[in-house]
Amino acid sequence: MNYFSSDFKLGILGGGQLGKMLLYNTRKFDITTFVLDPNEEAPAKLACNTFIKGDLLNYDDVYNFGKQVDLITIEIENVNLDALEQLEKEGKKVYPSPKTLRKIQNKATQKLFYQDNHLPTAPFSRFAFLSEVEDAIKNGGIELPFVWKSAQFGYDGNGVKIVRTVGDLKDLPKGECIAEQLVPFKNELAVIVARNASGKVKTYPVVEMEFHPEANQVEYVICPARIALNIQQKAQEIALKTSEAYNHVGLLAVELFLTQEDDILINEVAPRPHNSGHQTIEASFTCQFEQHMRAILDLPLGSTENKVASVMVNLVGAEGYTGNVVYKNIETIMSLDGVTPHIYGKRETRPFRKMGHVTIINKEVDKDRAIAQTVKEQIKVIAG
Amino acid sequence: MNYFSSDFKLGILGGGQLGKMLLYNTRKFDITTFVLDPNEEAPAKLACNTFIKGDLLNYDDVYNFGKQVDLITIEIENVNLDALEQLEKEGKKVYPSPKTLRKIQNKATQKLFYQDNHLPTAPFSRFAFLSEVEDAIKNGGIELPFVWKSAQFGYDGNGVKIVRTVGDLKDLPKGECIAEQLVPFKNELAVIVARNASGKVKTYPVVEMEFHPEANQVEYVICPARIALNIQQKAQEIALKTSEAYNHVGLLAVELFLTQEDDILINEVAPRPHNSGHQTIEASFTCQFEQHMRAILDLPLGSTENKVASVMVNLVGAEGYTGNVVYKNIETIMSLDGVTPHIYGKRETRPFRKMGHVTIINKEVDKDRAIAQTVKEQIKVIAG
Repeated sequence: MNYFSSDFKLGILGGGQLGKMLLYNTRKFDITTFVLDPNEEAPAKLACNTFIKGDLLNYDDVYNFGKQVDLITIEIENVNLDALEQLEKEGKKVYPSPKTLRKIQNKATQKLFYQDNHLPTAPFSRFAFLSEVEDAIKNGGIELPFVWKSAQFGYDGNGVKIVRTVGDLKDLPKGECIAEQLVPFKNELAVIVARNASGKVKTYPVVEMEFHPEANQVEYVICPARIALNIQQKAQEIALKTSEAYNHVGLLAVELFLTQEDDILINEVAPRPHNSGHQTIEASFTCQFEQHMRAILDLPLGSTENKVASVMVNLVGAEGYTGNVVYKNIETIMSLDGVTPHIYGKRETRPFRKMGHVTIINKEVDKDRAIAQTVKEQIKVIAG
Repeated sequence: MNYFSSDFKLGILGGGQLGKMLLYNTRKFDITTFVLDPNEEAPAKLACNTFIKGDLLNYDDVYNFGKQVDLITIEIENVNLDALEQLEKEGKKVYPSPKTLRKIQNKATQKLFYQDNHLPTAPFSRFAFLSEVEDAIKNGGIELPFVWKSAQFGYDGNGVKIVRTVGDLKDLPKGECIAEQLVPFKNELAVIVARNASGKVKTYPVVEMEFHPEANQVEYVICPARIALNIQQKAQEIALKTSEAYNHVGLLAVELFLTQEDDILINEVAPRPHNSGHQTIEASFTCQFEQHMRAILDLPLGSTENKVASVMVNLVGAEGYTGNVVYKNIETIMSLDGVTPHIYGKRETRPFRKMGHVTIINKEVDKDRAIAQTVKEQIKVIAG
């Protein structure tokens, strides 16, 4: 199929900031795009050819959307898989496939998949209801403290909580969840693997993630990770094994823990462009969004090498501010070397809401990290 | 004014491929954009908030468009300047200013401006009508051969012709023109200068241009230029002087000749993002489109340093093909190291029509140039 012709139609499920950044790269290739999103004001709405409002979890909305296009991809995992399976049966290309998405969408299933495939991950127990967790604590089935994770629809720190006392369970959702052993780790890492429809694979350099203590959101993404080369290689090997096990098409972002003993454990995966790859826009030979396009269109994959070192800073709403967003001191940070802000276009800010990100690029990663600190201290996402 | 708010409205005159690439960067900053273009199918239509169909040279179309926005910029010089002057009188920001545009839009005026400001340029004569040129040749006022340039609306090799015999004048437009001395030059160079509203200035590295012999279109843009450092500095100094003379806001692309005697002469300028800066998207710390945005919004200018060396190849329609475009062997070139195609989205190809460009990036410029050769040999923009 000639993708570089107006006959070909690409459908994207989800029109958030990932979809928006993906669309810039579809424009570069002049690909005709359809976007499905429940939000009439979705960030991606502007850069697509046809925007359709609909529920990503509703069978009919997803099925009817898919019927209009030739190839369907996603910017978010929480979509109706029955509809995607039906579309695949009817000959539509769906990347990542619903088969892959089923193994990822539910976090309990995801963890069991690692076990079944002998992929390293922290010990855990799966529970159908939160009440069972309480019983398990009482009868010694699991020990405190542990990490509670909702099996469904967790993102941006929602759906994850460290449980130190039975009381901590109080306000949690009642449904299916896992209790994961709290592993003391040195570092959180991530590796993005790209795989095209023909099975060609490329692995991005390892990034290091610094998390915000309260919000449990990534605060800095540092590339390359400041860890020993052999550990970087180990992380890439495990990411590659994970990618092989899923046999996905498109990107797979693999989030990893580096333990005190320098073991590497898989935290979770996302089969799409990912927050841990935003710095590739400025820093990599091939940005993750172009790479995802190359992969799902079965084009040759681009080089995953770095042009420069980088640090990505998430722009999240400051505590104590809700309302029309103002990016205080954005001019100040733009005067710093190698700094580019990316504003996602959400009108309303609230504490810890992801409003954008800032990329800092330089020849040396330490210089990036120092400037990133200043960026973090200077810019304030407030309401006004 | 807070540009990073939905209240601010940016107007762009022209919705071609330059406007389209400029818009990606407005999206990055979440700026609300209006685009005016005569073509209902303009490439930039997709990425703007509001598209208005209209004639860029019609007073009312430009004036009524400008009234709806806060700041007006251009992607093409050939716009109605009376309307822009009126809008400026009424307090709208117009960057570049109509005052600057008047000095550039007409090529005869542009050449006289260089003379008046002691900026080096090839000797020339200005003529109100083509007939006067013929007379001047006959009475020895100008010598053959010389370069004929239309004073109005020349671009992409249109409006420029080397005249070797009186017969060569036959098919030329009859209006105002200049006859420029044919200067034997080693090389064509270009330097882009960015100037923000506060007068802060930054200069990009010198690029070297290789032209297609027949089409008189840029075939390769090579950055950094493979010339001696002192000549690079000289070219940057002249570009900077030219920028100061125009006192423009936004980008100024300065095209230069390097003569056999290593003198540098100004060929022409463009007060906007330019074909000689496309490689900055992949290769520079700050791409020309983001830099133009920073300049007109009076934000701090970004670094103009290279991350990597680059070569840009124009994708033009192959001779002998007219009709629905097909990019033959695009998969082949995408398998080469550091190659990214940019497809402009024009449906119809014709000989030498600009259909897109390809950027090749690498650590060494010679490797880029070698790969660019392969790209040029492999890809064919044909009809099918």
